[in-house]
Amino acid sequence: MSNADAFAQLLDALRCLPGVGPKSAQRMALYLLQRDRAGAVRLVEALRRALDVVGQCRDCRGLAETTQCALCADARRNRGQLCVVEGLADQLSIERSADYRGTYFVLSGRLSPLDGIGPEELGMDHLALRLDSGEVNEVILATGTTLEGEATAHYVAEMARRRGIRATRIAYGVPLGGELDYVDGSTLSHALAARRDYVD
Amino acid sequence: MSNADAFAQLLDALRCLPGVGPKSAQRMALYLLQRDRAGAVRLVEALRRALDVVGQCRDCRGLAETTQCALCADARRNRGQLCVVEGLADQLSIERSADYRGTYFVLSGRLSPLDGIGPEELGMDHLALRLDSGEVNEVILATGTTLEGEATAHYVAEMARRRGIRATRIAYGVPLGGELDYVDGSTLSHALAARRDYVD
Repeated sequence: MSNADAFAQLLDALRCLPGVGPKSAQRMALYLLQRDRAGAVRLVEALRRALDVVGQCRDCRGLAETTQCALCADARRNRGQLCVVEGLADQLSIERSADYRGTYFVLSGRLSPLDGIGPEELGMDHLALRLDSGEVNEVILATGTTLEGEATAHYVAEMARRRGIRATRIAYGVPLGGELDYVDGSTLSHALAARRDYVD
Repeated sequence: MSNADAFAQLLDALRCLPGVGPKSAQRMALYLLQRDRAGAVRLVEALRRALDVVGQCRDCRGLAETTQCALCADARRNRGQLCVVEGLADQLSIERSADYRGTYFVLSGRLSPLDGIGPEELGMDHLALRLDSGEVNEVILATGTTLEGEATAHYVAEMARRRGIRATRIAYGVPLGGELDYVDGSTLSHALAARRDYVD
């Protein structure tokens, strides 16, 4: 294998990263090999370690090193509340910014029958088991506001209702700190329709 | 070490890549762990291998697996022509797009006295040895058109002249296929000043 090969293979491997094309792959490869070999070694080790230890949590289907993630294993979290999200990124966002103290269930995306993505593909069977356990008394629907997100929320709400579990949807409206004239029309009309009594 | 640690360390390690902030690092980490574990394994192996084998070419200071890169070892390349570039990316660009058949010398950047980057930092001593070898009869200055790039070109041209070696500068002007009214003023005035007799 020639040097061109080792370098070309690195370029190729970097291009598997989302959002990385030929130009960025080259920039990254040159940076790693020329400027930051220590960082490159750290990256190799961190990625290999993550591949070894990070798997799926038995309960929430989020990231976990053991069979259960730190969050699900935390006795201080309210296991009666179950927040259903479309993916790991959403779970991480909520966990980072909100003071939510319940638990999660991470779907593997959203319903999209046209793409052949039905309830089974998303892990709804696991969600059903979780709801059947009897410990959940509120399902918080935190899927997106796209058509597919709404369909997924509807599907999960039905699952909850059939088991007599309360289903709630997170609030949608004008973002905090947003100027009204920069907010899109459908968000505005939703915000108007979902108005509440003003409490000082 | 908890699962949060392995994941957090991966995020951290990914952020050493140029142009990757917290958001992209998370997107990459989730993608690698969830969607493309095979790609992640490939990346680990390609990067480890590149770190092991890719070093600096004895002659051109470009990337090389052995002491000499494939390009410098290629007997069909004209060792009389030496194209001096500011960095590996420039060498790769020229090699990809031009039908240049000479050899290269890759500087480690450009002269920038204010940042403490003098001739030694760029590898000018190695370049001097190369010029002293007697095999070079033309130095092609392919550094950038920035102030530092011009200063670097000037410095290298002086080195060549002192040894009686011809120094040439790659042509600057209106890019091919470019509309004149989109070309900036200094490029245009340079293109006018550097005009040549029209040959059909």
